Amino acid sequence: MSAPEQSRQIQSLISKEGQLQLSIAAVELPKPGPDDIIVRIEAAPINPSDLALLTGPADLGTAVAGGTAESPVVTADIPSRLMGMVAGRVGEPMAVGNEAAGVVVAAGSSDAAQSLLGKTVGIAGGEMFAEYRCVNAMMALPMPAAVSPAQAASSFVNPMTALGMVETMRDEGFTALVHTAAASNLGQMLNRVCLADGIDLVNIVRKPEQEEILREIGAKYVVNSSSDSFADDLTAAIEATGAYLAFDATGGGNMANTILTCMERAATKGMEYNRYGSDTMKKVYVYGRLDLSPIQLTAAYGFSFSVSGWLLTPFLQRIGIPRMIELRQRVAAEISTTFASHYTAEISMEEALSLDTLRLYSQRQTGQKYLINPHKQA
Amino acid sequence: MSAPEQSRQIQSLISKEGQLQLSIAAVELPKPGPDDIIVRIEAAPINPSDLALLTGPADLGTAVAGGTAESPVVTADIPSRLMGMVAGRVGEPMAVGNEAAGVVVAAGSSDAAQSLLGKTVGIAGGEMFAEYRCVNAMMALPMPAAVSPAQAASSFVNPMTALGMVETMRDEGFTALVHTAAASNLGQMLNRVCLADGIDLVNIVRKPEQEEILREIGAKYVVNSSSDSFADDLTAAIEATGAYLAFDATGGGNMANTILTCMERAATKGMEYNRYGSDTMKKVYVYGRLDLSPIQLTAAYGFSFSVSGWLLTPFLQRIGIPRMIELRQRVAAEISTTFASHYTAEISMEEALSLDTLRLYSQRQTGQKYLINPHKQA
Repeated sequence: MSAPEQSRQIQSLISKEGQLQLSIAAVELPKPGPDDIIVRIEAAPINPSDLALLTGPADLGTAVAGGTAESPVVTADIPSRLMGMVAGRVGEPMAVGNEAAGVVVAAGSSDAAQSLLGKTVGIAGGEMFAEYRCVNAMMALPMPAAVSPAQAASSFVNPMTALGMVETMRDEGFTALVHTAAASNLGQMLNRVCLADGIDLVNIVRKPEQEEILREIGAKYVVNSSSDSFADDLTAAIEATGAYLAFDATGGGNMANTILTCMERAATKGMEYNRYGSDTMKKVYVYGRLDLSPIQLTAAYGFSFSVSGWLLTPFLQRIGIPRMIELRQRVAAEISTTFASHYTAEISMEEALSLDTLRLYSQRQTGQKYLINPHKQA
Repeated sequence: MSAPEQSRQIQSLISKEGQLQLSIAAVELPKPGPDDIIVRIEAAPINPSDLALLTGPADLGTAVAGGTAESPVVTADIPSRLMGMVAGRVGEPMAVGNEAAGVVVAAGSSDAAQSLLGKTVGIAGGEMFAEYRCVNAMMALPMPAAVSPAQAASSFVNPMTALGMVETMRDEGFTALVHTAAASNLGQMLNRVCLADGIDLVNIVRKPEQEEILREIGAKYVVNSSSDSFADDLTAAIEATGAYLAFDATGGGNMANTILTCMERAATKGMEYNRYGSDTMKKVYVYGRLDLSPIQLTAAYGFSFSVSGWLLTPFLQRIGIPRMIELRQRVAAEISTTFASHYTAEISMEEALSLDTLRLYSQRQTGQKYLINPHKQA
């Protein structure tokens, strides 16, 4: 095993004229320092959180494929009113990819780095849609024997987010959770974590087949937002579980408002009239933006409410390294069970830049999830 | 001095048929227990926070005056879609009035109660739009000599809210504030508190004459939301002060969103691109609902944001009795200076129920502020 001098990576560039350009570029692979390792990346999931950087606010309806088969280039227009959102990155090629797994093919001189040689590791930290990546050995999560890179690909974003939700719930004194887009890979993980830890979880999905997926893995509370009885069902589930903390992946439209309204209905059942609403704290953390329309809050739930953003990185900074390492070790130990992921297909970097794939992603909420293998022959 | 057996009070009743009825009713005045005092109420402000209970969601365009001059009755319709908001109070006559000041005319046997006899006190706790009120002596704030009941009338809601904002700012690690509806009595108090305590305060008003009011009392940062340069002015003021915590009295429409957007613009000046927005925490507390339209959040400010309700009572519960007493003592000592209030007129209870007064109140944001003197001859 050894590392080459160059590595191909997916890059995203926004020009000041308002055009997105996606391409695959060869960049120099750094020589590992004493504490570094070189990972040959074999599997990198395309997460919704990658899209903000990959395609940004581009209108993929305008996407045009160009370049060659080995070196495809995709261009698309960015609506001018959205250019302000990306002013900070104009003209800078951005390498994409939050996490991946692969095999350690070179290592620096330190014991920590050397001990990882030949091992399958999960890594995170950006620039992962690439053939190789040089990272600090501390950042790598060694996997149990017999775990493949494909199995280990999603060892960071979804597992740590699921655990982060549960830890946040405990830290803030709540005892049960509401979760939207609940049939996603993340939602399934969260169900398995909650089942293992004895936490009541209210799952909100949009389709009957998503209800099925969750009931099959043991989910007790599943409500369908497309159903006429959605508000009543959600209120009843909140009343049964005491779930006054929600994590919302949609982050737009009326979902946060509906959840808070149903929480208030559950909290005020049998309560005396209070002009300010119940004093039960009702909280929604928005952690995704599947719906880009504005969040609407009618505030028909008094003043004991909060709608806040939630992201994994600040959460990890808050809990500190020792607690983070504990959580990471649980992920490695349970990567094939609690934290197992499912993918639609394994694709090459070139295929990742095909218009079909990009458009599927731009529709969001499709349930499609791709795994990039940067060494797959296109 | 002595207390009568009965006391007249303003009552608000909502029928299950959806009609609001306001009237003045004579109710029995309790005999004071050992720790109680009877206060002859001489001045009670009508605060915006009283309106939720007084007129609720009634459409005052439909208000009709009835009854007699000494015993007026006002009726008004409640839109049926809003009846759910008040389901808990239907059929129960509610006594109104959050705070007042008056003279202690009778007292229970305890030393604490006896020591207040003849004193002017500020009191809070509801049912204050009344001739007399029996309260625990602990609840009364004795005023310095030479302070009149009219001067002491607003000793609780606005002063404690202004102090509560500053204390919340300190508790949460912020160092400066943004405030909307900033020319109100509360806003003026907040300016005086911030000037005294050396805290930068960004005042948002809607009219040039409101800018004047604030500049006259020494406000340094005043921005006008009706100006074309509002967003730029607000961004510049936030950048100059580092005010990433706002208290918003409007609680509807686009105000919270604009504040968060300007905070983000200030926070990202000169920052490297981050796809999740700045990691500067940006927070808006909604403490009023002058605008009843839904709050709109475009979330064009990443994920480090929070929009939450804020109310005085939970804040006071959070800080505990000793700290609350400290704050109350500051209010009493500075009631004629820092915490001075201004009123449009002193009116009787009968005048408070006139259609003119009620309609002025229903327009909100009028800057009109009335003081009820329950013993004034109508």
